[in-house]
Amino acid sequence: MSNDFQVKGIKIAKLPSDYGSTGFKMFKGGVLNNVEIAYETWGELSINNDNAILIFTGLSPSSHAASSNINKEAGWWEYMIGPNKPIDTNKYFVICINSLGSCFGSTSPATLDKETGNIYGTKFPELSIEDIAKAGHMVLISLGIDKAHTVIGPSMGGMTALAYALLYPKDLSNLIIISAAARALPFTISIRSLQRELIRSDPKWEKGNYTKDSAPLNGMKLARKLGLMSYRAANEWRERFNRARIKKKEGQKMFDIEFEVESYLDHNSEKFISMFDPNCYLYLSRAMDLFDVAEHGGTVNAGLAKIHTKRNLIIGVKSDILFPIDQQKELADGFEKAKKNYSFKKLDSIQGHDSFLVDEERFSEVISDFFKD
Amino acid sequence: MSNDFQVKGIKIAKLPSDYGSTGFKMFKGGVLNNVEIAYETWGELSINNDNAILIFTGLSPSSHAASSNINKEAGWWEYMIGPNKPIDTNKYFVICINSLGSCFGSTSPATLDKETGNIYGTKFPELSIEDIAKAGHMVLISLGIDKAHTVIGPSMGGMTALAYALLYPKDLSNLIIISAAARALPFTISIRSLQRELIRSDPKWEKGNYTKDSAPLNGMKLARKLGLMSYRAANEWRERFNRARIKKKEGQKMFDIEFEVESYLDHNSEKFISMFDPNCYLYLSRAMDLFDVAEHGGTVNAGLAKIHTKRNLIIGVKSDILFPIDQQKELADGFEKAKKNYSFKKLDSIQGHDSFLVDEERFSEVISDFFKD
Repeated sequence: MSNDFQVKGIKIAKLPSDYGSTGFKMFKGGVLNNVEIAYETWGELSINNDNAILIFTGLSPSSHAASSNINKEAGWWEYMIGPNKPIDTNKYFVICINSLGSCFGSTSPATLDKETGNIYGTKFPELSIEDIAKAGHMVLISLGIDKAHTVIGPSMGGMTALAYALLYPKDLSNLIIISAAARALPFTISIRSLQRELIRSDPKWEKGNYTKDSAPLNGMKLARKLGLMSYRAANEWRERFNRARIKKKEGQKMFDIEFEVESYLDHNSEKFISMFDPNCYLYLSRAMDLFDVAEHGGTVNAGLAKIHTKRNLIIGVKSDILFPIDQQKELADGFEKAKKNYSFKKLDSIQGHDSFLVDEERFSEVISDFFKD
Repeated sequence: MSNDFQVKGIKIAKLPSDYGSTGFKMFKGGVLNNVEIAYETWGELSINNDNAILIFTGLSPSSHAASSNINKEAGWWEYMIGPNKPIDTNKYFVICINSLGSCFGSTSPATLDKETGNIYGTKFPELSIEDIAKAGHMVLISLGIDKAHTVIGPSMGGMTALAYALLYPKDLSNLIIISAAARALPFTISIRSLQRELIRSDPKWEKGNYTKDSAPLNGMKLARKLGLMSYRAANEWRERFNRARIKKKEGQKMFDIEFEVESYLDHNSEKFISMFDPNCYLYLSRAMDLFDVAEHGGTVNAGLAKIHTKRNLIIGVKSDILFPIDQQKELADGFEKAKKNYSFKKLDSIQGHDSFLVDEERFSEVISDFFKD
């Protein structure tokens, strides 16, 4: 199964020697051996090693954030990264990390455990956002970079960037947190908890012991539909779909798809299911629910006070229901209380949580401005 | 299966003779024979037959809106209906209708089709909100009531009350629409569409041909969880649950319930699944998606202009994500354009769509005020 999700052109960082004797200790206990992390890079590292921008991703993307000579396919943040783009690869050495626990080349529940000869599946140890941050740090070490110029992340990647700043306060200069939070709220937890239950309720999940040829694809599809609903915004769909119907197909049965919005969700969730491993989805989703900046100091504010970056940019979107803008305000308030240098941008994008992927105009502007300063 | 969901103390209205020769013609085609509608009443009908209040319900409640001498159990709107309560049974004759298509005594997909000797299941004809309104009208006729004093409905019941006012404009004096809409928006459609898919994805659904002993209970449970998430509001849950954990049970496994919000959803969805028939859920849910006031005149405003009630009260809740307050404003704007007598109350209740069930203070006040005038 492990090779199914490989992305062309990725590089692999292997567990460096300073983790070697004890393995990769997981934040909540357990050890992983032979950890490999997939990543991609764009641009050139400066002679002083001071121009690295480290990007952590949301739950589902790979490290392929932008096209390159090796992989010309458009990346998930194509408009943002490249020569003369907001994250300018003429100036910066950009590294995008495939999260530990994700199936696009990094060690994950879909990987073969070399010690047992079996796929990890649910034998994979409990995964935390902090582990993903540590794996990103490991990539920097392997590249000989002591300190990132900036660590950036949207969504789960924003949580990971926070975790990085908490775990390695000296190893980054600047921080950009996009549509993320210090910790998940109960409504968001309930969405992700139900997504996981949808996967686990598919009889083909088999308590995580499915095989490649009989994966719980229907559960994945249902979970992805719920995800897509939480990633966008009601008013955007009102403008885009309203109550438009699709052409009924021959032999149309009661409860078959009738509305365009149903067709959109069906099409997009169908596309996703063969692209992501169900157990990886479960682990990453749960890691987001469990993450809490308050575990790094007793309260969220005490945690944020431990971050020692020179500049911090927090971006939130008013139409986001998954990480509502109150949660980015909580981060900004925490930086304010701790007298940190920060900027908080509240964007009017209508596309909800996914705005960073699609609202090129607003996001290009705020990210460009940050790097101009 | 049909008797499992019976509610103590209900009365049954049988298809009256004026529908008898042709059966009950469904709004979108098809005919039902031997239609029976369950209902309950409180208070006494006045000599002039002019004090009847007709209540239509949301998707899941029975006709047991309040306790009575026959059934002392609290009803779903107990605080609202009774002697000296906002809907005062000392003054009014109150009738609550179990929707056509619901499993609490009315003819529905869970009923035995007397002509075939089988449960209807998915052989039940396509159900519309208009059919539910017509069935309510049938109950009034059977009670010898020509004209309702007021027709009230929350949620799906609000759509049904609108349909009643459109189909029988002379047969009611006043209208109260609570947390409802002229038609469903794509985000709401997507929630209900996914709920139906969750039920249909349970292998035990068997294309609707399940038996009582092997109903798709897991699909129902998942659908109900998603429902509960859409019925409440993120900020209420933040105050109520935040990130509180439950006590882990012995043998706790990864992905088992950990947060209180997960436990709340699990408990409440578990309670529901034995109380409602899955096929009935599918039919009623779909009827809500298909309902559109614009079908009664070309546009929503043209439809609303056909309503000839003396007074109209529209109530919306600012924290509702299922029927957002913009949609109640759309109704108010329609009444305004058509120069109708109306009042629009925007409530600050924090409990989302379900507020009418739990925010006794705010809802008691606006309903009391309406009947005082």
